[in-house]
Amino acid sequence: MKKHHVSEVEAVEVEQGAKGVTIRWLLTEKMGAATFVMRHFEIAPGGYTPRHAHVWEHEVYILSGAGIVVGNGRDNPFQAGDAILMPGDEEHQFRNTGTEPVTMLCLIPARESECVQR
Amino acid sequence: MKKHHVSEVEAVEVEQGAKGVTIRWLLTEKMGAATFVMRHFEIAPGGYTPRHAHVWEHEVYILSGAGIVVGNGRDNPFQAGDAILMPGDEEHQFRNTGTEPVTMLCLIPARESECVQR
Repeated sequence: MKKHHVSEVEAVEVEQGAKGVTIRWLLTEKMGAATFVMRHFEIAPGGYTPRHAHVWEHEVYILSGAGIVVGNGRDNPFQAGDAILMPGDEEHQFRNTGTEPVTMLCLIPARESECVQR
Repeated sequence: MKKHHVSEVEAVEVEQGAKGVTIRWLLTEKMGAATFVMRHFEIAPGGYTPRHAHVWEHEVYILSGAGIVVGNGRDNPFQAGDAILMPGDEEHQFRNTGTEPVTMLCLIPARESECVQR
């Protein structure tokens, strides 16, 4: 078993089309996560993740805050407690339209995590 | 994209060696989750999950509450914000030793989810 607290993991700024977003790699292949990996994102008020599409899916759980997720070709509101499945190849983006930070978990298949981390 | 709030998903009692535990299947193969699936657990004060081992791994994020996780052959405290990787074949159990409900996400590989749901 491996265990650590989110606050113990370094927050790294996300570049490439993002604004005000940091990522923490919570559970990784290097730690032994063989099938999928767990990341924690924080989006500052007014911030957003890149608007893009890729072949792998996302599974997201909103921990705190509220905003807009682009999916199904439109803007959709999200709030804490929402679970979101973003299939591969679908254009998506998360925007913080509120006044508090948005925090969320976003998991991806392990086979893709090396590409994403680069 | 599929999205729903945790409160919209039915909570089902976990049997087989558990006490005071409910599960919500948030993101499932039926919804299109191809690689891994997301479940939400609630453990009442004094409750616990089965003490067991199985071939698939768990990735857990503690949303609220505190307790004990059995892993690495011993009792380990956990609290909200902890990320836990439980490898396959390792004996484990989550116990709520506090006075508030424990809520947590627990994800597993999709290939196993049919066995677990039965």
